[in-house]
Amino acid sequence: MSKDTTQITEPIAQLFQGKNFAFVSTLMKDGSPQISPTWVDIEKNHEYSILVNTAVGRIKHKNVSRDPRLAISIINSSNPYEMVTIRGKVTEQLTQDAAEEHIDKLAKKYLGVDTYPGRSPGEKRVILKIRPEKIFYQQPLR
Amino acid sequence: MSKDTTQITEPIAQLFQGKNFAFVSTLMKDGSPQISPTWVDIEKNHEYSILVNTAVGRIKHKNVSRDPRLAISIINSSNPYEMVTIRGKVTEQLTQDAAEEHIDKLAKKYLGVDTYPGRSPGEKRVILKIRPEKIFYQQPLR
Repeated sequence: MSKDTTQITEPIAQLFQGKNFAFVSTLMKDGSPQISPTWVDIEKNHEYSILVNTAVGRIKHKNVSRDPRLAISIINSSNPYEMVTIRGKVTEQLTQDAAEEHIDKLAKKYLGVDTYPGRSPGEKRVILKIRPEKIFYQQPLR
Repeated sequence: MSKDTTQITEPIAQLFQGKNFAFVSTLMKDGSPQISPTWVDIEKNHEYSILVNTAVGRIKHKNVSRDPRLAISIINSSNPYEMVTIRGKVTEQLTQDAAEEHIDKLAKKYLGVDTYPGRSPGEKRVILKIRPEKIFYQQPLR
Protein backbone atom coordinates (compact mmCIF):
# COMPACT_ATOMS: atom_id res chain seq x y z
CA MET A 1 0.00 0.00 0.00
CA SER A 2 1.24 3.47 -0.76
CA LYS A 3 -0.18 6.86 -0.04
CA ASP A 4 0.32 10.58 -0.20
CA THR A 5 0.12 12.41 3.09
CA THR A 6 1.13 15.68 4.68
CA GLN A 7 1.82 14.04 8.05
CA ILE A 8 4.90 12.25 9.32
CA THR A 9 3.34 9.11 10.78
CA GLU A 10 5.04 6.79 13.27
CA PRO A 11 6.39 4.28 10.68
CA ILE A 12 7.82 7.18 8.66
CA ALA A 13 9.49 8.65 11.76
CA GLN A 14 10.98 5.21 12.46
CA LEU A 15 12.64 5.17 9.03
CA PHE A 16 14.43 8.41 9.96
CA GLN A 17 15.24 7.20 13.48
CA GLY A 18 16.78 3.99 12.12
CA LYS A 19 20.36 3.66 10.91
CA ASN A 20 19.28 4.30 7.32
CA PHE A 21 21.00 6.72 4.95
CA ALA A 22 18.86 9.47 3.47
CA PHE A 23 19.33 10.90 -0.01
CA VAL A 24 18.98 14.65 -0.27
CA SER A 25 18.42 16.58 -3.46
CA THR A 26 19.05 20.31 -3.71
CA LEU A 27 19.26 22.79 -6.58
CA MET A 28 22.48 23.97 -8.20
CA LYS A 29 22.87 27.60 -9.26
CA ASP A 30 21.73 26.73 -12.81
CA GLY A 31 18.59 25.05 -11.41
CA SER A 32 19.78 21.50 -12.08
CA PRO A 33 19.33 18.87 -9.36
CA GLN A 34 22.16 17.66 -7.14
CA ILE A 35 21.90 14.60 -4.92
CA SER A 36 23.90 13.10 -2.08
CA PRO A 37 23.58 10.35 0.50
CA THR A 38 23.69 11.60 4.07
CA TRP A 39 23.15 10.77 7.72
CA VAL A 40 19.81 12.00 8.99
CA ASP A 41 17.88 12.74 12.17
CA ILE A 42 14.30 13.62 13.04
CA GLU A 43 12.88 15.58 15.94
CA LYS A 44 9.39 16.38 17.16
CA ASN A 45 8.30 19.55 18.83
CA HIS A 46 4.74 20.43 17.96
CA GLU A 47 5.49 18.93 14.56
CA TYR A 48 8.28 16.84 13.01
CA SER A 49 11.40 18.36 11.49
CA ILE A 50 14.02 16.42 9.57
CA LEU A 51 17.61 17.33 10.40
CA VAL A 52 20.58 17.03 8.07
CA ASN A 53 24.05 18.02 9.24
CA THR A 54 26.56 19.30 6.71
CA ALA A 55 29.61 21.57 6.70
CA VAL A 56 29.31 25.30 6.12
CA GLY A 57 30.24 26.15 2.52
CA ARG A 58 29.70 22.67 1.12
CA ILE A 59 27.57 22.19 -1.96
CA LYS A 60 24.37 21.24 -0.08
CA HIS A 61 24.75 24.22 2.26
CA LYS A 62 25.42 26.64 -0.59
CA ASN A 63 22.48 25.30 -2.57
CA VAL A 64 19.86 25.55 0.21
CA SER A 65 21.14 28.98 1.22
CA ARG A 66 20.31 30.15 -2.31
CA ASP A 67 17.07 28.14 -2.73
CA PRO A 68 15.64 26.31 0.31
CA ARG A 69 13.60 23.79 -1.70
CA LEU A 70 14.78 20.24 -1.35
CA ALA A 71 13.67 16.64 -1.59
CA ILE A 72 14.69 13.80 0.69
CA SER A 73 14.15 10.06 0.41
CA ILE A 74 14.94 7.09 2.58
CA ILE A 75 14.51 3.35 2.26
CA ASN A 76 14.57 0.76 5.00
CA SER A 77 18.02 -0.82 4.70
CA SER A 78 16.59 -4.17 5.78
CA ASN A 79 13.66 -3.95 3.32
CA PRO A 80 14.14 -1.51 0.43
CA TYR A 81 10.48 -1.79 -0.56
CA GLU A 82 9.56 0.30 2.49
CA MET A 83 10.34 3.86 1.50
CA VAL A 84 9.35 7.46 1.92
CA THR A 85 10.04 10.45 -0.28
CA ILE A 86 9.47 13.99 0.90
CA ARG A 87 9.47 17.40 -0.68
CA GLY A 88 9.95 20.39 1.57
CA LYS A 89 12.02 23.39 2.53
CA VAL A 90 14.91 24.25 4.79
CA THR A 91 13.26 26.58 7.32
CA GLU A 92 16.19 27.11 9.67
CA GLN A 93 19.98 26.73 9.80
CA LEU A 94 21.64 26.07 13.15
CA THR A 95 25.39 26.42 13.59
CA GLN A 96 27.96 26.52 16.43
CA ASP A 97 27.50 24.30 19.53
CA ALA A 98 24.14 22.92 18.43
CA ALA A 99 25.56 21.75 15.10
CA GLU A 100 28.85 20.45 16.56
CA GLU A 101 27.02 18.40 19.21
CA HIS A 102 24.57 17.16 16.64
CA ILE A 103 27.23 15.71 14.31
CA ASP A 104 28.63 13.81 17.30
CA LYS A 105 25.12 12.50 18.02
CA LEU A 106 24.92 11.27 14.40
CA ALA A 107 28.38 9.67 14.64
CA LYS A 108 27.08 7.78 17.68
CA LYS A 109 24.00 6.63 15.78
CA TYR A 110 25.76 5.58 12.56
CA LEU A 111 29.28 4.64 13.67
CA GLY A 112 28.85 3.91 17.39
CA VAL A 113 31.54 6.43 18.37
CA ASP A 114 31.30 9.44 20.70
CA THR A 115 33.04 11.96 18.45
CA TYR A 116 32.57 12.49 14.74
CA PRO A 117 35.85 11.30 13.16
CA GLY A 118 35.48 13.13 9.84
CA ARG A 119 36.13 16.74 10.87
CA SER A 120 38.44 18.75 8.63
CA PRO A 121 40.58 21.54 10.11
CA GLY A 122 38.53 24.73 10.39
CA GLU A 123 35.33 22.98 9.39
CA LYS A 124 32.12 24.44 10.81
CA ARG A 125 29.03 22.25 10.97
CA VAL A 126 25.49 23.37 10.20
CA ILE A 127 22.14 21.72 10.85
CA LEU A 128 19.61 22.09 8.03
CA LYS A 129 16.17 21.93 9.60
CA ILE A 130 13.65 20.71 7.04
CA ARG A 131 9.88 21.16 7.10
CA PRO A 132 8.15 18.39 5.11
CA GLU A 133 5.44 19.58 2.72
CA LYS A 134 4.57 16.65 0.43
CA ILE A 135 5.09 13.12 1.70
CA PHE A 136 4.78 9.85 -0.19
CA TYR A 137 5.05 6.67 1.88
CA GLN A 138 5.16 3.12 0.59
CA GLN A 139 4.70 0.32 3.08
CA PRO A 140 6.70 -2.89 2.62
CA LEU A 141 5.46 -4.95 -0.35
CA ARG A 142 6.44 -8.24 1.19
CA MET B 1 39.52 8.47 -0.89
CA SER B 2 37.05 10.41 -2.96
CA LYS B 3 37.33 12.05 -6.33
CA ASP B 4 35.56 13.89 -9.09
CA THR B 5 35.70 12.29 -12.49
CA THR B 6 33.95 12.37 -15.82
CA GLN B 7 34.47 8.65 -16.39
CA ILE B 8 32.47 5.67 -15.16
CA THR B 9 35.25 3.45 -13.82
CA GLU B 10 34.92 -0.27 -13.15
CA PRO B 11 34.06 0.03 -9.39
CA ILE B 12 31.38 2.62 -10.23
CA ALA B 13 29.90 0.36 -12.91
CA GLN B 14 29.83 -2.46 -10.34
CA LEU B 15 27.70 -0.34 -8.00
CA PHE B 16 25.11 -0.03 -10.77
CA GLN B 17 25.41 -3.70 -11.74
CA GLY B 18 24.83 -4.79 -8.14
CA LYS B 19 21.42 -5.24 -6.53
CA ASN B 20 21.57 -1.71 -5.11
CA PHE B 21 18.73 0.81 -5.33
CA ALA B 22 19.50 4.12 -7.02
CA PHE B 23 17.95 7.43 -6.03
CA VAL B 24 16.94 9.67 -8.92
CA SER B 25 16.23 13.35 -8.66
CA THR B 26 14.32 15.23 -11.36
CA LEU B 27 12.77 18.69 -11.59
CA MET B 28 9.10 19.46 -10.99
CA LYS B 29 7.31 22.01 -13.19
CA ASP B 30 8.03 24.77 -10.63
CA GLY B 31 11.75 23.89 -10.67
CA SER B 32 11.76 22.20 -7.26
CA PRO B 33 13.55 18.86 -6.87
CA GLN B 34 11.74 15.53 -6.70
CA ILE B 35 13.41 12.30 -5.63
CA SER B 36 12.60 8.62 -5.73
CA PRO B 37 14.32 5.30 -5.13
CA THR B 38 14.42 3.06 -8.18
CA TRP B 39 15.87 -0.05 -9.75
CA VAL B 40 18.74 0.71 -12.08
CA ASP B 41 20.84 -0.78 -14.88
CA ILE B 42 23.98 0.22 -16.73
CA GLU B 43 25.14 -0.59 -20.26
CA LYS B 44 28.29 0.04 -22.21
CA ASN B 45 28.50 0.69 -25.91
CA HIS B 46 31.35 3.04 -26.72
CA GLU B 47 30.55 4.71 -23.40
CA TYR B 48 28.44 3.93 -20.36
CA SER B 49 24.76 4.84 -20.10
CA ILE B 50 22.67 4.47 -16.97
CA LEU B 51 19.20 3.06 -17.54
CA VAL B 52 16.15 3.74 -15.38
CA ASN B 53 12.82 2.12 -16.23
CA THR B 54 9.61 3.91 -15.30
CA ALA B 55 6.01 4.03 -16.55
CA VAL B 56 4.91 6.49 -19.23
CA GLY B 57 3.11 9.45 -17.63
CA ARG B 58 4.54 8.98 -14.15
CA ILE B 59 6.13 11.88 -12.34
CA LYS B 60 9.76 11.01 -13.28
CA HIS B 61 8.80 10.56 -16.93
CA LYS B 62 6.83 13.82 -17.04
CA ASN B 63 9.67 15.68 -15.36
CA VAL B 64 12.48 14.52 -17.64
CA SER B 65 10.31 15.02 -20.74
CA ARG B 66 10.05 18.69 -19.74
CA ASP B 67 13.64 19.10 -18.47
CA PRO B 68 16.13 16.27 -19.07
CA ARG B 69 18.51 17.28 -16.27
CA LEU B 70 18.72 14.80 -13.44
CA ALA B 71 20.92 13.52 -10.65
CA ILE B 72 21.37 9.93 -9.56
CA SER B 73 23.09 8.45 -6.54
CA ILE B 74 23.77 4.94 -5.33
CA ILE B 75 25.39 3.44 -2.26
CA ASN B 76 26.69 -0.07 -1.82
CA SER B 77 23.99 -1.82 0.24
CA SER B 78 26.67 -3.86 1.99
CA ASN B 79 28.86 -0.81 2.73
CA PRO B 80 27.05 2.54 2.59
CA TYR B 81 30.36 4.43 2.73
CA GLU B 82 31.03 3.40 -0.85
CA MET B 83 28.93 5.72 -2.95
CA VAL B 84 28.66 7.56 -6.22
CA THR B 85 26.61 10.58 -7.19
CA ILE B 86 26.17 11.65 -10.78
CA ARG B 87 24.69 14.63 -12.55
CA GLY B 88 23.63 14.22 -16.15
CA LYS B 89 20.87 14.27 -18.70
CA VAL B 90 18.31 11.92 -20.19
CA THR B 91 19.48 11.68 -23.81
CA GLU B 92 17.02 9.09 -25.08
CA GLN B 93 13.69 7.50 -24.16
CA LEU B 94 12.98 3.95 -25.32
CA THR B 95 9.47 2.49 -25.18
CA GLN B 96 7.58 -0.57 -26.47
CA ASP B 97 9.31 -3.98 -26.62
CA ALA B 98 12.70 -2.67 -25.49
CA ALA B 99 11.20 -1.13 -22.35
CA GLU B 100 8.86 -4.07 -21.57
CA GLU B 101 11.72 -6.58 -21.86
CA HIS B 102 13.97 -4.33 -19.80
CA ILE B 103 11.59 -4.14 -16.81
CA ASP B 104 11.47 -7.96 -16.81
CA LYS B 105 15.28 -7.98 -16.82
CA LEU B 106 15.25 -5.68 -13.77
CA ALA B 107 12.64 -7.88 -12.02
CA LYS B 108 15.03 -10.79 -12.55
CA LYS B 109 17.91 -8.83 -11.08
CA TYR B 110 16.09 -7.42 -8.04
CA LEU B 111 13.35 -9.99 -7.32
CA GLY B 112 14.67 -13.15 -8.99
CA VAL B 113 11.50 -13.57 -11.08
CA ASP B 114 11.10 -13.79 -14.88
CA THR B 115 8.24 -11.33 -15.24
CA TYR B 116 7.83 -7.96 -13.56
CA PRO B 117 4.92 -8.44 -11.11
CA GLY B 118 4.03 -4.76 -10.67
CA ARG B 119 2.40 -3.95 -14.03
CA SER B 120 -0.82 -1.94 -13.88
CA PRO B 121 -3.47 -2.44 -16.58
CA GLY B 122 -2.66 -0.31 -19.63
CA GLU B 123 0.75 0.67 -18.23
CA LYS B 124 3.46 1.39 -20.79
CA ARG B 125 7.08 1.22 -19.70
CA VAL B 126 9.82 3.60 -20.76
CA ILE B 127 13.60 3.39 -20.43
CA LEU B 128 15.29 6.66 -19.54
CA LYS B 129 18.81 6.54 -20.96
CA ILE B 130 21.10 8.78 -18.94
CA ARG B 131 24.42 10.25 -20.01
CA PRO B 132 26.62 11.01 -16.97
CA GLU B 133 28.29 14.44 -17.00
CA LYS B 134 29.69 15.04 -13.49
CA ILE B 135 30.64 12.08 -11.35
CA PHE B 136 31.69 12.01 -7.71
CA TYR B 137 32.89 8.65 -6.36
CA GLN B 138 33.79 7.84 -2.78
CA GLN B 139 35.61 4.61 -2.09
CA PRO B 140 34.77 2.63 1.06
CA LEU B 141 36.08 4.32 4.23
CA ARG B 142 36.53 1.07 6.08
